Amino acid sequence: MRPIDDSPLTRDGKVLILAYDHGLEHGPVDFEAVPESADPEHVFEVATHPAVTSLAVQKGVAEAYYPDYAEDVTLLAKLNGTSNLWMGEPDSAVNWSVEYADEIGADSIGFTLYGGSNHEIEMAEEFRDAHEAARERDMPVVMWSYPRGQGLKNDKKPGTIAYAARQALELGADVAKVKYPGSPEAMEEVVEMAGRTKVIMSGGSKTSDREFLETVKAAMDAGASGLAVGRNVFQRENPEAILDGLEEIIFEESSVETALAATEQ
Amino acid sequence: MRPIDDSPLTRDGKVLILAYDHGLEHGPVDFEAVPESADPEHVFEVATHPAVTSLAVQKGVAEAYYPDYAEDVTLLAKLNGTSNLWMGEPDSAVNWSVEYADEIGADSIGFTLYGGSNHEIEMAEEFRDAHEAARERDMPVVMWSYPRGQGLKNDKKPGTIAYAARQALELGADVAKVKYPGSPEAMEEVVEMAGRTKVIMSGGSKTSDREFLETVKAAMDAGASGLAVGRNVFQRENPEAILDGLEEIIFEESSVETALAATEQ
Amino acid sequence: MRPIDDSPLTRDGKVLILAYDHGLEHGPVDFEAVPESADPEHVFEVATHPAVTSLAVQKGVAEAYYPDYAEDVTLLAKLNGTSNLWMGEPDSAVNWSVEYADEIGADSIGFTLYGGSNHEIEMAEEFRDAHEAARERDMPVVMWSYPRGQGLKNDKKPGTIAYAARQALELGADVAKVKYPGSPEAMEEVVEMAGRTKVIMSGGSKTSDREFLETVKAAMDAGASGLAVGRNVFQRENPEAILDGLEEIIFEESSVETALAATEQ
Amino acid sequence: MRPIDDSPLTRDGKVLILAYDHGLEHGPVDFEAVPESADPEHVFEVATHPAVTSLAVQKGVAEAYYPDYAEDVTLLAKLNGTSNLWMGEPDSAVNWSVEYADEIGADSIGFTLYGGSNHEIEMAEEFRDAHEAARERDMPVVMWSYPRGQGLKNDKKPGTIAYAARQALELGADVAKVKYPGSPEAMEEVVEMAGRTKVIMSGGSKTSDREFLETVKAAMDAGASGLAVGRNVFQRENPEAILDGLEEIIFEESSVETALAATEQ
Amino acid sequence: MRPIDDSPLTRDGKVLILAYDHGLEHGPVDFEAVPESADPEHVFEVATHPAVTSLAVQKGVAEAYYPDYAEDVTLLAKLNGTSNLWMGEPDSAVNWSVEYADEIGADSIGFTLYGGSNHEIEMAEEFRDAHEAARERDMPVVMWSYPRGQGLKNDKKPGTIAYAARQALELGADVAKVKYPGSPEAMEEVVEMAGRTKVIMSGGSKTSDREFLETVKAAMDAGASGLAVGRNVFQRENPEAILDGLEEIIFEESSVETALAATEQ
Repeated sequence: MRPIDDSPLTRDGKVLILAYDHGLEHGPVDFEAVPESADPEHVFEVATHPAVTSLAVQKGVAEAYYPDYAEDVTLLAKLNGTSNLWMGEPDSAVNWSVEYADEIGADSIGFTLYGGSNHEIEMAEEFRDAHEAARERDMPVVMWSYPRGQGLKNDKKPGTIAYAARQALELGADVAKVKYPGSPEAMEEVVEMAGRTKVIMSGGSKTSDREFLETVKAAMDAGASGLAVGRNVFQRENPEAILDGLEEIIFEESSVETALAATEQ
Repeated sequence: MRPIDDSPLTRDGKVLILAYDHGLEHGPVDFEAVPESADPEHVFEVATHPAVTSLAVQKGVAEAYYPDYAEDVTLLAKLNGTSNLWMGEPDSAVNWSVEYADEIGADSIGFTLYGGSNHEIEMAEEFRDAHEAARERDMPVVMWSYPRGQGLKNDKKPGTIAYAARQALELGADVAKVKYPGSPEAMEEVVEMAGRTKVIMSGGSKTSDREFLETVKAAMDAGASGLAVGRNVFQRENPEAILDGLEEIIFEESSVETALAATEQ
Repeated sequence: MRPIDDSPLTRDGKVLILAYDHGLEHGPVDFEAVPESADPEHVFEVATHPAVTSLAVQKGVAEAYYPDYAEDVTLLAKLNGTSNLWMGEPDSAVNWSVEYADEIGADSIGFTLYGGSNHEIEMAEEFRDAHEAARERDMPVVMWSYPRGQGLKNDKKPGTIAYAARQALELGADVAKVKYPGSPEAMEEVVEMAGRTKVIMSGGSKTSDREFLETVKAAMDAGASGLAVGRNVFQRENPEAILDGLEEIIFEESSVETALAATEQ
Repeated sequence: MRPIDDSPLTRDGKVLILAYDHGLEHGPVDFEAVPESADPEHVFEVATHPAVTSLAVQKGVAEAYYPDYAEDVTLLAKLNGTSNLWMGEPDSAVNWSVEYADEIGADSIGFTLYGGSNHEIEMAEEFRDAHEAARERDMPVVMWSYPRGQGLKNDKKPGTIAYAARQALELGADVAKVKYPGSPEAMEEVVEMAGRTKVIMSGGSKTSDREFLETVKAAMDAGASGLAVGRNVFQRENPEAILDGLEEIIFEESSVETALAATEQ
Repeated sequence: MRPIDDSPLTRDGKVLILAYDHGLEHGPVDFEAVPESADPEHVFEVATHPAVTSLAVQKGVAEAYYPDYAEDVTLLAKLNGTSNLWMGEPDSAVNWSVEYADEIGADSIGFTLYGGSNHEIEMAEEFRDAHEAARERDMPVVMWSYPRGQGLKNDKKPGTIAYAARQALELGADVAKVKYPGSPEAMEEVVEMAGRTKVIMSGGSKTSDREFLETVKAAMDAGASGLAVGRNVFQRENPEAILDGLEEIIFEESSVETALAATEQ
């Protein structure tokens, strides 16, 4: 019932998701640094890098571009998402049925849960439906587990992130995407709380190569199973270079120095 | 899966939608300038002009008049819409199922999304259902992508319109109908954000022939794929003349002067 | 798809609906003037008058009484309605499925839309479902199109009533029941806005024979297709007499004087 | 379609429902006077009295006890109900599907409508679904028609109770359970408004034998078809005695004195 | 229809549920005392103790771990639950369909009802659906019946807990899990109100061995059918020992002294 191990979403049990739903979630502003990143073709090309185990996009981008890359890219259907034009308590529209995601060729699904939001219950029930529909199709389920909302004073506390990882386990996610909780010790706690659910850290805002790779290394050493990254790849002029570095750290268990050297080759 | 290219909604990849749902959205006031425009027969006659690739109407108008024009007019089913008698945060009723639109003979569907409204999530989920039902029937999907609501201070900012075009791409529209963002440069940005989703500008309030044609020309030069127009056609005494001019600009890539000459023939 | 012309709801293209859902909408107070009017048997008897093309009732009254009159009365199933015990923004419960209305023997359906209410969207979507279910069964659709709610300062303005008639057309009603807008000129505008949707005026509160017949005559002369009447019939001691008069005006195109003479025969 | 006459819910056209959902609606407090009344076995035994035409209980009580009494008791499935732990505008949960009620062996269904509540519309639509599902199974429908809510200043006014009875008729109930409106004249008006829907009075809080039987007699003389009684039976030490008295009044048309004598045998 | 007696949820008519959904309901904090308790494997091992008649977990934990323990552990699917990150009136998400719980191998289902919450009605209707789906599969139903919400001043009053037990009976639970009401007399009242629904006490926060076993003994003597326990087992260094003691009290009807001796063997 947990189809994660046989899925191309993993490589040797590790995961590197290239996330590209920023056009919906944040709008054009995220593409300003590297204008060609607005073009899905550019990002699908990047996703052909062997380090990328899946590309996460919304339905419209998948429909329009994935058929051209079906041989070279593994598709993760990001089912929900919403613009930030909208104000109010965190929530997210389910833009894509699992049935149609499967038809388009998605291998796995992704779903955001804003634990702590006044809409948590509704989102959890939408997650249930998506999860069970995915199970019928042997599609792994990745939860973007992001506590957020008026009930939360601080959504970056280690304890909150550990709780988020546990929610992912309890509700049935194969993979939990969480924020890095700030220290290796805190990440260990997060991983422990997730049990058999794999934990991957989210890339966050763009940082320097060294800083970014060091954080990923620390997460992996603390037991994480990989990374979901967007801006830290596509907001770089040379996204392939940073993917070379990430491949060293995530799949080769290399040091940060080795990974940095790989980015410069 | 993207059925747009083979559809009569396009002619040489370009689109000219005659929109006629003002009776629902604005009421009788929009027909005052040219009283015969209240009569759907009059507008169906106008829609037989070869420049018009589809006529967009609500269900009741389609049911009552389209059968008489099925040979000469291509029908776009505008699925949602609401009166302006109603006050409150922008929202729109889904007045027509895709199944029934198909039965009546519609070739494609149209759907309004008010990004930024407190009802954005609900509207996006209604759009999802309509979109996936349309895909089953190979009906192209046009999104009226109109950011609007209490979360938006200014819905005509170029960045907001570019975001609206991106939402249309991300959510699965084949064509995004957006407001003209005020300059060719801004329109280029809008088109870029829409990727493989065609962008068409909405006609807006009635202006002079020259002003209107110049704006359409600017939009086309900036990469737009056409126009959705209502009042700028049916509020004219001679709607065929302006359609002659639009045909020059949209399908013949003519200059504004040539188009103006065509309107006077 | 528009089954109105072959339906017994019309006689020579004209409509006279006897409406009898006041027990739900207003309660016992509407029966005080003529106590026997509380008895559905009495009103079904009245509805056997040849001028009446349909009797509009709620589900429970239809179930309990229509079987005894199935040969002599044509049934219009008034699908929604609510008590006035309830306070708040106008809304109406859907008390009857189209499927069951068909099973009971209804020939057509009736549905109230409160355009301008904060519940307009929800009501329009309920109307959509009822409309499309009726189309599957070739049952004509009558909309009680009554703008009402906090968004409306004046629901009796001619422009508002014209808008209401247009909503009925746009949303798919075969017949629009609207209030008389106060003058023949305004009624002409209403009829024009309704296009191929027939417009019938609602009878309203009880008035004198002459006043009532003059208003109906004015409406017919302005292009209306008939009348839906309740209190102006059943609150009269001799309802057959006024129906004789209405038959003259609606079906025989007689003058008010002739009609008044008919009421006195 | 109105299956009431052939149903064991009636005996010679009269109805005596023993209602026993107080454990849900009011909680343990209603069983304090006669502790054994908390035990459903005790009340099912009482319901084997020949005067009782049906026993009304919630789903859980029916499931657990009715199988032992299927030969001797006729089951009315009270579909909705809620605790009084909850505060707010009157509403009621639908705890039981008609399908499952039929499977358990129920002969008829019961449903509360709080006319005048801000939830009236939602409750009426839930009633619709239950009513139509019951019709498919030829199960009679009893409405507990209880106006209540912020829109009502006085829910015991005769006019309000008459309106409640009319609602039951208009919405499709075979039997309307209403409060006694205070006088025989008012009860006559209630019965008149209900048309072919049978009116039964609800027993209310416990009173003396004489007072209770006099009220029931007055209601019957005014045209009521019976009674739904709970506390006035199960809060008595000898519930069979009062049922003997009720049998005299309801089914034998006896005087109050005869009925009182029967209670003392 | 009441499948409880033949189910492995009971042993000689008694119930001991090991509840382990604290990771969702309370988060990592509940695992701090005994860190290995965060690991579901540890708790599944504990659940192989013969005193445990079922282990109650959420969907994700069941999916990921139950297959390894299917021979040795009986699974109770806890269908709803929510994090405490969220604020507001008590409510709970339905995270698991009965269909899928059955597929995973669950023997019975568990469902929380917050009687007295402003969401009571919605929760009761969700319970209805789960209950009837469970009946189709002969799966016993356990209700976590916990009055809570703004309508309740004191949710630990004996009368409130007795009402909670009655709600469980009325709505169709086979087993009601309630808080211990503080005294044997109060517990007797609770058991009486539950009728044929078995009452089990919830373990609550961790206490000393003696205190805990004395309370359980008192509950059993007052007619309870067992216990649902979480923290009082898994927050102990030696959970098997306390289970040995509970086995004595619940299944062997032993004294507290005998049970304490068993915990020390």
